[in-house]
Amino acid sequence: MPSTWGNYLKMSIFGESHGPGIGVVLDGLPAGIPIDREALDRFTQRRAPGKNRNSTPRKENDWPEFLSGYWNGVTTGTPLAALIRNHDTQSKDYSQMEAVARPGHADYTGFLRYGGANDVRGGGHFSGRLTAPLTLAGGIAKQILAGQGIFIGAHLLQVADLQDLSFDPVNLDVPTLLRPGESPFPTLNQACGDGMQEAIEQARMALDSVGGIVECGVLGFPAGIGSPMFDGLENRIASLVFGIPAVKGVEFGDGFAACGLRGSQNNDPFFLENGRIATTTNHAGGILGGISSGMPILFRAGFKPTPSIALSQKTVNFRENRAEELSIHGRHDPCVAVRAVPVVEAAAALALLDALLEARGYQGLQGSSVGSK
Amino acid sequence: MPSTWGNYLKMSIFGESHGPGIGVVLDGLPAGIPIDREALDRFTQRRAPGKNRNSTPRKENDWPEFLSGYWNGVTTGTPLAALIRNHDTQSKDYSQMEAVARPGHADYTGFLRYGGANDVRGGGHFSGRLTAPLTLAGGIAKQILAGQGIFIGAHLLQVADLQDLSFDPVNLDVPTLLRPGESPFPTLNQACGDGMQEAIEQARMALDSVGGIVECGVLGFPAGIGSPMFDGLENRIASLVFGIPAVKGVEFGDGFAACGLRGSQNNDPFFLENGRIATTTNHAGGILGGISSGMPILFRAGFKPTPSIALSQKTVNFRENRAEELSIHGRHDPCVAVRAVPVVEAAAALALLDALLEARGYQGLQGSSVGSK
Amino acid sequence: MPSTWGNYLKMSIFGESHGPGIGVVLDGLPAGIPIDREALDRFTQRRAPGKNRNSTPRKENDWPEFLSGYWNGVTTGTPLAALIRNHDTQSKDYSQMEAVARPGHADYTGFLRYGGANDVRGGGHFSGRLTAPLTLAGGIAKQILAGQGIFIGAHLLQVADLQDLSFDPVNLDVPTLLRPGESPFPTLNQACGDGMQEAIEQARMALDSVGGIVECGVLGFPAGIGSPMFDGLENRIASLVFGIPAVKGVEFGDGFAACGLRGSQNNDPFFLENGRIATTTNHAGGILGGISSGMPILFRAGFKPTPSIALSQKTVNFRENRAEELSIHGRHDPCVAVRAVPVVEAAAALALLDALLEARGYQGLQGSSVGSK
Amino acid sequence: MPSTWGNYLKMSIFGESHGPGIGVVLDGLPAGIPIDREALDRFTQRRAPGKNRNSTPRKENDWPEFLSGYWNGVTTGTPLAALIRNHDTQSKDYSQMEAVARPGHADYTGFLRYGGANDVRGGGHFSGRLTAPLTLAGGIAKQILAGQGIFIGAHLLQVADLQDLSFDPVNLDVPTLLRPGESPFPTLNQACGDGMQEAIEQARMALDSVGGIVECGVLGFPAGIGSPMFDGLENRIASLVFGIPAVKGVEFGDGFAACGLRGSQNNDPFFLENGRIATTTNHAGGILGGISSGMPILFRAGFKPTPSIALSQKTVNFRENRAEELSIHGRHDPCVAVRAVPVVEAAAALALLDALLEARGYQGLQGSSVGSK
Repeated sequence: MPSTWGNYLKMSIFGESHGPGIGVVLDGLPAGIPIDREALDRFTQRRAPGKNRNSTPRKENDWPEFLSGYWNGVTTGTPLAALIRNHDTQSKDYSQMEAVARPGHADYTGFLRYGGANDVRGGGHFSGRLTAPLTLAGGIAKQILAGQGIFIGAHLLQVADLQDLSFDPVNLDVPTLLRPGESPFPTLNQACGDGMQEAIEQARMALDSVGGIVECGVLGFPAGIGSPMFDGLENRIASLVFGIPAVKGVEFGDGFAACGLRGSQNNDPFFLENGRIATTTNHAGGILGGISSGMPILFRAGFKPTPSIALSQKTVNFRENRAEELSIHGRHDPCVAVRAVPVVEAAAALALLDALLEARGYQGLQGSSVGSK
Repeated sequence: MPSTWGNYLKMSIFGESHGPGIGVVLDGLPAGIPIDREALDRFTQRRAPGKNRNSTPRKENDWPEFLSGYWNGVTTGTPLAALIRNHDTQSKDYSQMEAVARPGHADYTGFLRYGGANDVRGGGHFSGRLTAPLTLAGGIAKQILAGQGIFIGAHLLQVADLQDLSFDPVNLDVPTLLRPGESPFPTLNQACGDGMQEAIEQARMALDSVGGIVECGVLGFPAGIGSPMFDGLENRIASLVFGIPAVKGVEFGDGFAACGLRGSQNNDPFFLENGRIATTTNHAGGILGGISSGMPILFRAGFKPTPSIALSQKTVNFRENRAEELSIHGRHDPCVAVRAVPVVEAAAALALLDALLEARGYQGLQGSSVGSK
Repeated sequence: MPSTWGNYLKMSIFGESHGPGIGVVLDGLPAGIPIDREALDRFTQRRAPGKNRNSTPRKENDWPEFLSGYWNGVTTGTPLAALIRNHDTQSKDYSQMEAVARPGHADYTGFLRYGGANDVRGGGHFSGRLTAPLTLAGGIAKQILAGQGIFIGAHLLQVADLQDLSFDPVNLDVPTLLRPGESPFPTLNQACGDGMQEAIEQARMALDSVGGIVECGVLGFPAGIGSPMFDGLENRIASLVFGIPAVKGVEFGDGFAACGLRGSQNNDPFFLENGRIATTTNHAGGILGGISSGMPILFRAGFKPTPSIALSQKTVNFRENRAEELSIHGRHDPCVAVRAVPVVEAAAALALLDALLEARGYQGLQGSSVGSK
Repeated sequence: MPSTWGNYLKMSIFGESHGPGIGVVLDGLPAGIPIDREALDRFTQRRAPGKNRNSTPRKENDWPEFLSGYWNGVTTGTPLAALIRNHDTQSKDYSQMEAVARPGHADYTGFLRYGGANDVRGGGHFSGRLTAPLTLAGGIAKQILAGQGIFIGAHLLQVADLQDLSFDPVNLDVPTLLRPGESPFPTLNQACGDGMQEAIEQARMALDSVGGIVECGVLGFPAGIGSPMFDGLENRIASLVFGIPAVKGVEFGDGFAACGLRGSQNNDPFFLENGRIATTTNHAGGILGGISSGMPILFRAGFKPTPSIALSQKTVNFRENRAEELSIHGRHDPCVAVRAVPVVEAAAALALLDALLEARGYQGLQGSSVGSK
């Protein structure tokens, strides 16, 4: 189904950008897991708009209302539903979009898909705003995983043509993993982050936008989880990450760079490290045969430049079949990759929790105070 | 489930490399669709081993036995099951693998996943041989799609560091699309193909292997099919393509290259072409918001170099926790990307048929002679 | 997943009886279908509490808020989410239930299932109140089906030991089908309805409760929809109807009564009726091999007596493992089958819409004004 | 999907009665579980035809070939596929069925469903023969459950109008549970079984058939497994049992009989039995709120009389739209319920294993010798 995901954990995301609200239902969570609402809020605020000069000035109080599944500070084990109200909507910004296809957007394809019945205000269900409930759901998954000693962090690897450092695929540690997420701008190297912000600002001044790449790492995920073929960790992560608007590529470990290597360069030799099996390199990104190896899990998601730009563009009115010129003057991030950093973490968390539930069942992840009887 | 895939079309793949046989069950096919067994065989033979100097000398008669779902030359609409027997198995080649982890392989992760109970002979369920039933299933999907005027073709875009031409994202035509698949070596440019074969041969002579990239194109797929979020065409295709062993990256349209562009460069302007809406460029790869735009669908799958190499490698025996040296002397393609070209086509066909079934139902795709009553 | 249902239409139900609210997400609806909110409200009010002397006095304004998927009076095709707030909650009624197992209830099994973390107020996610979003979802499905000429109606066939007439399995017409739902008490025969109400009142006066049977009919459902094995109409309907609290049996056509017959008595002879194939009898309830025959679809759902009774009962405190006596003094319907009549219709509508989407796809059910382009 | 079932365990059944073979793929099994092939064969032989005077004389060697997923005597954890060849097929028996609808059969509905393309020989995919792979799959599930101390047994409760004893819902013990399955005719009371056989023989002599009811019990299933709403044990069991041809009703515990009772009669009082919580009665059939209570699980499946009878019946030729008379002279059991006894056990085993996998994951059910590392 379009907006329903998952095998062991089931997620259903709903909402349109300028409708009453957006939200998520998570079915299959283990019961009795404490959820720290403040920590969750700090996490979701990382993707909230209006945080810095690079993001859209739309201000939303994205504080979610938990409708069910959360009681006395813990998950109840029954479906957790959360609702985020839409407040600051300026639908007039988008009024002409109902018939004029914004290049790079889903206006035209959505029109065909839904026969013109879909809510087009603010991008409707296609809006990047729908990543808010995804991030919320992933934030909950992150806390459950953290309770198992599993940590997830992402950072901006590239903006325009500026590349920052990569996570060290072998020696990545938890503080480094989490640092970009705690920084005002999510890079490993601060100077590089300044350059990226400058590049974004230049694009904005030029009435344009830029693309970027988010790299995500996972530490502490147990070895031996996942499956060959279609339920591999790669399949699961990709099936979610490609659900984030603007993502056009996903790669694991060295990804496409490995295609130019020889096997002797790309294979990761196994060795014994204090009696534990590890690899000396990690070109595989911690996944072999769809299954975790115990090494850091690493992947990258490539974001195209924001399609909404103020520069004049050629397009068509698809209801009247005539050519048009279009300049887009709404509120748009000139680089969606920036705010997407926590969204990618969220996607990873949900995919990995799904895999862990397959392996251990909900009983295997139940809260420690639970089932004491 | 690990080896079960699909929402509207359901595919279940089974088998181990050196067990009695491998196969596939396809549930949800429209009824009354003629399947040309000879054409299907020509298609599946494109991935069969032993075809040229670059591929493993293992010879299999991979002619499938149709166990159900196919009668009087057409699909019956009930589950189609096909079995491919394993004949030419030399399990002794692999005997030491039961405990010694081949670097880059799933030996160790599979051992953990299945607690040592999985059939490890020839890679078992992790073997590239499992792409035979996937290709068979995809070949059936391709024929169903062809009946709707939808054509799928792929080619080798890169081997080692040699890049061939890309498909023209705007003006791709059906003969060009299908030509690589009809050639002895699946490239657009024959000279480049010769170079690639040479590079593969050099790797083999060096007891090594190389990676590669497969590019796939789709023509004739109707606009307006797919969905936002998790059932987008990108999600569906990726969920299958990452199920092909050795794939470490998937990108659509310009993919990661778009991350370095500005919106004004990457957006595809819409225009009217003989009354029909099209785009002048196709950086998006024919997909906007997870939905087909009517432009050619284009994506790339990156394959790591074959991990099985004859060069000596450092590794461990994971049952006895001690270091080992390993040289692999079985039969292995030095570049899995070559034989993977039709597998990628198959994956695309299955993903797109699933999306078409969602839109039209089985009745909308039923054979023309069907339902006349 | 516990509270997620469906293959082609996906439904996710959330909420707890005394939490902030309950609701539903429907993913996969065809776009552009007009939903008559007033008619929908009339339908859902049929299960609302406090309507007559036989139902719990709890008063709720169960008017749902549509959060998404509904715009300009039609379905948008993206997930439809609806929220029903909980207002009139008196949790103190249930305070002792946290540890004392009400016989016939899920207090003890839920405690084990969720390790004591589930929200137990008012029955939590186990509450009959969760049938409100199910009914709402089914009411939408009913309207979509009505647009295709398909009508669904149910009535009380039995209360305690009083049986009303059955629907005529061959000559059932739409006015008869819909009449019980439009009556103050949902029976075919009014006198019998009066007797049933009397029986319920007697049970209430005796501090007790009674069971009942709901019979449901469907007219206009096209022949040839459904499937053998696990996606038959029977499987789909049963998979939902057993999700209604207190249902302990489901039977189709003559059901268990057919087990005592001979084939010559139970087989429905085919004949030609004005050139159309029909059967002279309809013991099969309109379903053969899991597929609709074109005859009226008929099934029955058996409801156990409401477990919450004011009579003193023996039970245990499961947190302290000691015997207890329990009298339940909350607000409870003495016969849940009465208010369940529209819930059963809702379940049938959802199951049949799912089957229709499989056959025709969302395009085949799209609103008539849709896709005119 | 029509013939694919399950959430945590995935089952795909394929085949047509007179095609090359029938079979099953089970995906998601825990690894390292010993499967006793001889015991499995004894179990599946209980539904094999030609065993006694009451069953069809068709003789099949239904010994399955394991194609994958089973190695060294244990499950490998990868998909288990098994193939049963069709040998003794006499398709001419059925030749006229291609156009003449057998009353009570799916000939006509199948024709509409598949547009006339389905394999109709011997009933094709609708044949009762498809219960052979279902039984095989369930036999494997039964062995896995037995390893957890969970036992499943069924018996004939009714044939025609003759009723045998029911399982004692409170004091059922394992020897009693398993005894009918070990008897030549599966009843609790042998004299009653003789009567049933006589009734079946009388029906056969009258060129007719009779219906029956199978009752199934489960002992040792842990309390607290299952879920409210749509993944309850009742929903899961019913979703499979209604996939067995000829089943028209399913009820749990007292089922429909409870509808005539009062709450004070139907509620099962909890009490402490040697420190363990139990109920003094078991009208609920061991399931409350979709979750196991620890009491015996009990349900009944009602089978209509075999529709294939030799008596002359009125029907139509649906290809030529004209009336016909029909006498069916193939090989048919006059009472399908007899051979269905192990099939119902199989369905229960699969449903309960699915629920157990949800709770514990595959790791929680892995073989004891597995994962020792």
